[in-house]
Amino acid sequence: MICLKRLKKFKFSAFLGLVILSQIGITFALEKIPIDLLIKGDYLLTMVEGDKIIRSGAVAVDDGKILAIGKNEVLSQLYIAEDTLEGGNRVVMPGLINGHSHAAMTLFRGVADDYPLFEWLSILFPAEVNHVDSNFVRVGTELACWEMIRGGTTTFVDMYYFPDTIAEVVKNCGLRALISATIIDQRSPDAVDAADSLKNARAFVEKWQGISDRIIPILGPHSNYTLNSAQLKQTRSLANELGVGLSIHMAESPYEKKYALENYKSSSVLMYNSIGFLDGDTIAAHMVVPSQEEIRLLREKKIGVIYNPTSNMKTAAGVAPIVEMLEAGVKIGLGTDGAASNNDLDMWEEMRLATLLQKVKHMNPEVLPASKILAMATREGAKAIGLSKEIGTLEAGRWADIIQVSTGDVHFFPMYDLISHLVYVSDEQDVTSVVVAGKILMRDRRLLTLDTSRIRKEAETISNEIKLGLKSR
Amino acid sequence: MICLKRLKKFKFSAFLGLVILSQIGITFALEKIPIDLLIKGDYLLTMVEGDKIIRSGAVAVDDGKILAIGKNEVLSQLYIAEDTLEGGNRVVMPGLINGHSHAAMTLFRGVADDYPLFEWLSILFPAEVNHVDSNFVRVGTELACWEMIRGGTTTFVDMYYFPDTIAEVVKNCGLRALISATIIDQRSPDAVDAADSLKNARAFVEKWQGISDRIIPILGPHSNYTLNSAQLKQTRSLANELGVGLSIHMAESPYEKKYALENYKSSSVLMYNSIGFLDGDTIAAHMVVPSQEEIRLLREKKIGVIYNPTSNMKTAAGVAPIVEMLEAGVKIGLGTDGAASNNDLDMWEEMRLATLLQKVKHMNPEVLPASKILAMATREGAKAIGLSKEIGTLEAGRWADIIQVSTGDVHFFPMYDLISHLVYVSDEQDVTSVVVAGKILMRDRRLLTLDTSRIRKEAETISNEIKLGLKSR
Repeated sequence: MICLKRLKKFKFSAFLGLVILSQIGITFALEKIPIDLLIKGDYLLTMVEGDKIIRSGAVAVDDGKILAIGKNEVLSQLYIAEDTLEGGNRVVMPGLINGHSHAAMTLFRGVADDYPLFEWLSILFPAEVNHVDSNFVRVGTELACWEMIRGGTTTFVDMYYFPDTIAEVVKNCGLRALISATIIDQRSPDAVDAADSLKNARAFVEKWQGISDRIIPILGPHSNYTLNSAQLKQTRSLANELGVGLSIHMAESPYEKKYALENYKSSSVLMYNSIGFLDGDTIAAHMVVPSQEEIRLLREKKIGVIYNPTSNMKTAAGVAPIVEMLEAGVKIGLGTDGAASNNDLDMWEEMRLATLLQKVKHMNPEVLPASKILAMATREGAKAIGLSKEIGTLEAGRWADIIQVSTGDVHFFPMYDLISHLVYVSDEQDVTSVVVAGKILMRDRRLLTLDTSRIRKEAETISNEIKLGLKSR
Repeated sequence: MICLKRLKKFKFSAFLGLVILSQIGITFALEKIPIDLLIKGDYLLTMVEGDKIIRSGAVAVDDGKILAIGKNEVLSQLYIAEDTLEGGNRVVMPGLINGHSHAAMTLFRGVADDYPLFEWLSILFPAEVNHVDSNFVRVGTELACWEMIRGGTTTFVDMYYFPDTIAEVVKNCGLRALISATIIDQRSPDAVDAADSLKNARAFVEKWQGISDRIIPILGPHSNYTLNSAQLKQTRSLANELGVGLSIHMAESPYEKKYALENYKSSSVLMYNSIGFLDGDTIAAHMVVPSQEEIRLLREKKIGVIYNPTSNMKTAAGVAPIVEMLEAGVKIGLGTDGAASNNDLDMWEEMRLATLLQKVKHMNPEVLPASKILAMATREGAKAIGLSKEIGTLEAGRWADIIQVSTGDVHFFPMYDLISHLVYVSDEQDVTSVVVAGKILMRDRRLLTLDTSRIRKEAETISNEIKLGLKSR
């Protein structure tokens, strides 16, 4: 009898060896290898390019990472798991990646819908100045994390005020996040001007850098109409000095295009390039109005673009040239934007809209098939946010950021094409379990790391204050 | 003591009188009036134009109809209900009206996604000829009714083969439907040509007319590219002779426009008008490509238009001129189309897409605000399908087609604007209870009139046969 119990470091090679041995007909009476977690699924979707769906699959998880992937019957023979997520009528797949959000703005969900941009801003900006403090950001981010976890998002890229507070919430709830410290040249809830917000951003990054693999502090310059070119340059310098990336709103709308032409004598992406801003890791949200020349530049500079179809439609910003950018080789992920312009953080709906909007724009039902869209919310999204080696697919050695989706709802019947169903019919409410870095955050629809009744109560208190403010307008 | 127990016929006027008396401070020791059902809700939305949301409201239901609407505390004093749907954290509102569907096609859900139209047809048409029989239609329609009930749809307008079978399913499951007997000039699952399908349609209408207020048999001429002008005229004559309306696909796509110009030397709506086809009750689905002149004609002829945004995007048919048609006074409802081009029957998502698509088309976030969209799925939809006096609002004397929607899900927090939340965030899975003509079809998410495990099993059997057919292509 071969005892493998102590060979923790060699688990994966041991697994491979055993698979080979069992393939050639040699079986052993083995003591099973202890692992932290086994996640089973009737359907296993690695999202590795070219991989087929594994029926009756499983993922072995240990020390927060994926140890092995394969048929459930093989893995169940090899491993003894401390905990197991059963897989009947469930899909196991990588967690979704929300590439652009303002999480705390869940507290402004639906506060000013169907208004023109300037009226919307005239409600939102004073509401932010009056109400957004560290407590607001804590409660709003918790509410957002609750919604994201129950909907199957495991990583999000956030941009809002009081990033320290956001990081604390992320630390406690167990999600993975790139947290952008907002840099903006106006009086904001946490700074008086650009210089002040740059100072805060430096302190934030220095505090959180290297603390946790789940919390990645980056910079969040707001845009080229709330920062001038000198301030944008300073931001890139600070990012490079600290060795971090940044996320920004870029080429979001015809308004921004007009602003850039008037103030910089150049359209947005060209302007950013001319000041060296694109030389470094950049996540550019929206990208609705780039020219062909700018699209080539996005590819050349390896910019990660985040497509926000719901927000682009709701704010009437336009339709991003996603097909053209994909053809040019630009990295593209998906995002929900904040709940004030969506009004939820539902990545399933984002996937659906992502393809439907491009199909009708191009008058071609073939563009962006379901498989491409599901990749955009997982593997390609990971590339766009600079985590292509860590998350986005189920592969040995990667973080165990994994979700289970039930196929038991009526809208999944009958089942011809799993990927098509995931993109065209799934709801947040189909997600049953969520794991980040090997830790179970939601189990059979029960959230384990957030006190939802407290959050709900606190959100209500804050929203009542906001309602009073709105009434007195 | 005044005994009102026997005054069943005078319940509503008695209710009014008592409200007036209680308003002026006179109270009585009353024996409560017995009714069938009391439906309570923290929020009551009558959808009558101009009505405000009633907090802690209730609807009294008797003999299938709405008897009274008001504050729960008032109605609970007046009535003693045989059954009650409690209303904590729930919205009470009219059931949704799906103005265009091919219900049984749920059995083709996702069978050929992301294909160009002709490849899609080359899969769907043979699959229909090979698989669609009365049993297929029974199971597919049951599956669709299951999905529609759990999602809050109470009335649908269907068009498919074997309408007798559809009517049987509707009869048994308790929904309300306008069932269009398909008339098409090709070999179809239930006829050999137009004459044959006209003959079947007559028999269907004659069988079902007047049988039930919930089952309204109408004619379903498919389109002007599957029927010629003589056959279209015959269909209208038959409809007028039988005293029923009809539903049809009209001006659905650029393809149809081109076909009409080539074959009729006229665009669609003008052609239909020139042969007298528009003189009678008409539900026209899609209406993506009408001209301004044709829009005026739609108004003049009182055509009910059904907007199908998901299907129009997914099949890349285009964006219907909804704003222009509304401005011209055309009656417009919403529909999901069949699950083969959607891929679900989710009216909540249809509402969202209905406005988002128009906002981005017009580059204006103000168009089609949430309140207009919710009306389109209820009150205005009822007008478009010719049931404006019977359903679509909660008013005394109308059918009790009523749903409860939970506001307990995280995506409803915080609550600033109920109607905005219903349109921009609600899912099918938020619907908790569904009542049609006073009968409870779903109670606390449990379906009461359909054997879902049997339907699921039968759907699986049929889909396995279809899969074999697809493999042998």
